[in-house]
Amino acid sequence: MHTITIRRPDDFHVHFRTGEMMRMVVPLTAAWCGRALVMPNTIPPILTATDAIAYSDEIKRAAGDNDFKPLMTIKIVPTTTPTTVENAKKVGVIAGKVYPVGVTTNSDDGVHNFHDSGMIDVFSAMREAGMVLCLHGETPGDFCLDREEKFLDTLRWLAETFPGLKIVLEHITTAAGIEAVEQLPDAVAGTITVHHLLLTLNDVIGDKLSPHHFCKPVAKRPEDRGKIRAAAMNGSNKFFLGTDSAPHDITTKECASGCAGVFTAPVALPLLAGFFQQHERHQFFEFFTSIVGAQFYGLPFNTKTITLEENPWVVPPNYSAEGQTVVPFWSGKELRWRVA
Amino acid sequence: MHTITIRRPDDFHVHFRTGEMMRMVVPLTAAWCGRALVMPNTIPPILTATDAIAYSDEIKRAAGDNDFKPLMTIKIVPTTTPTTVENAKKVGVIAGKVYPVGVTTNSDDGVHNFHDSGMIDVFSAMREAGMVLCLHGETPGDFCLDREEKFLDTLRWLAETFPGLKIVLEHITTAAGIEAVEQLPDAVAGTITVHHLLLTLNDVIGDKLSPHHFCKPVAKRPEDRGKIRAAAMNGSNKFFLGTDSAPHDITTKECASGCAGVFTAPVALPLLAGFFQQHERHQFFEFFTSIVGAQFYGLPFNTKTITLEENPWVVPPNYSAEGQTVVPFWSGKELRWRVA
Repeated sequence: MHTITIRRPDDFHVHFRTGEMMRMVVPLTAAWCGRALVMPNTIPPILTATDAIAYSDEIKRAAGDNDFKPLMTIKIVPTTTPTTVENAKKVGVIAGKVYPVGVTTNSDDGVHNFHDSGMIDVFSAMREAGMVLCLHGETPGDFCLDREEKFLDTLRWLAETFPGLKIVLEHITTAAGIEAVEQLPDAVAGTITVHHLLLTLNDVIGDKLSPHHFCKPVAKRPEDRGKIRAAAMNGSNKFFLGTDSAPHDITTKECASGCAGVFTAPVALPLLAGFFQQHERHQFFEFFTSIVGAQFYGLPFNTKTITLEENPWVVPPNYSAEGQTVVPFWSGKELRWRVA
Repeated sequence: MHTITIRRPDDFHVHFRTGEMMRMVVPLTAAWCGRALVMPNTIPPILTATDAIAYSDEIKRAAGDNDFKPLMTIKIVPTTTPTTVENAKKVGVIAGKVYPVGVTTNSDDGVHNFHDSGMIDVFSAMREAGMVLCLHGETPGDFCLDREEKFLDTLRWLAETFPGLKIVLEHITTAAGIEAVEQLPDAVAGTITVHHLLLTLNDVIGDKLSPHHFCKPVAKRPEDRGKIRAAAMNGSNKFFLGTDSAPHDITTKECASGCAGVFTAPVALPLLAGFFQQHERHQFFEFFTSIVGAQFYGLPFNTKTITLEENPWVVPPNYSAEGQTVVPFWSGKELRWRVA
């Protein structure tokens, strides 16, 4: 049987939620990741060192005896202070996540104004502490397809105003976003999701309406996807995996007002294996999933490995726990690769 | 109480479906329209004079004693012949509808190739018979937001190849579509829906995912809507009302693979009244809804009138008949105008 063995990946963008949902989804990421950067937009949010410690402990319990380490973030909100940042860094929080207000799920407490003096103090404190700034890079309120490109001025302003601050433009969906990151200094990098490697807007609204392909930022044009694919598979040291795997109960997706988010945790690695194979770039598979992100964050590479085998399986229609049902990306379709 | 009285409108694009669904939705259009052009993409489709007569009779029964007349269409498919066209015209069918194959609901039997010799014979026969050619103007397979603009070459080719053939570009969603119709001879006109006067793509995917705002062609950019609004409200004699009101059962909208179509029949006229008032173009309200379309189709104007009163009401969450539940456009929102 054909197999591929790589250094264990890291997922530098994942949503674990809380409670039963968390206990259901954490093992699906822990099954293939050495580490995962856990987003703080839970209800209630992860705002402080104390919150992050408690949340990390819960995640570790949910992961069981897997060899898995959650990497913690705090949510940067208008009330965040330099002291919040310093205290969080001391307990091992490695990144602060900024959501422009209202831009996606659980972002109503997000940042209105990046140029506000309080925010400037926080960004300075993050640079001093060596905490990475993770950005949901969209300007809310603009036309949906323009939001990422319009955010790039803010990205460039941040990179120029806080040289040395490590910044990640998350879940890039546009050619303009890729180009902006390429042109900025090494302290600025980008994450790429599995679904944005595969989808365009046609897969959301081009035929039937597909709530399980709907996310923020929404998938864009084929030309955008082409640029994202090239950034992921050509061995760039500025782009790395962040799946943005985001579980939502089926009743909040298949409804009159559907939530944004694609749940890729159970299928991400098999889909990536297939993607790099299909594009004959298998030499950069491990680089994208397991090397570039660790390098950027200044973390040691994972030493354990993971093996995929060419052994087709059909993605289940859903994953369920008590009162929660989540439809995974690619549900009902066949995948060629599986984690051995 | 503030009231508006206009000549009874015509809706030059409506989906009535069949069976229970038809019996539920016909009265909601008949309540405010003198006439409505009924789309033939039912299951099974309306392909011939015989089909159209039977369907028209059913619709009249569903309308009850309303002073309402269905205007019949046939679906132009690859097996349509000049004789089909001639026979249909003889029994009063006034238009033939072309769907490019696979472009929207029930269009799998649509037209592959407009330049095919069989199609050319059919278009010639339509011109001879004085039958209007109604077009779903999108090229399937292209990127979803480009499909209408890419279709415009076909529209221009049809107008040039069959001068005098009356052609309607239906449910226009782009500035380019409006401009193409404006620039072509008088035999080419366009219909505009109520929902495309009000929505942009932001209302479909910009915040939550909104299946009840999802239609084909999908709503586009604010600049496109601006051009559509101007075409509707500035007294042009090339653009008239065609709501494309399209009922779908709620289970086929709020699901993993949602159908395209917006059900505006119960709210179209109140929304239009508000739209023309808000833009201070009330002098063109009747012109758009009740004059331009009749003129283009060569029909007498409706003699009866309809009165709207400024008397707010909340749009119901749904309309139901045996085993069918349809969520209307604007459900749960307040409307300022109502049919008296």
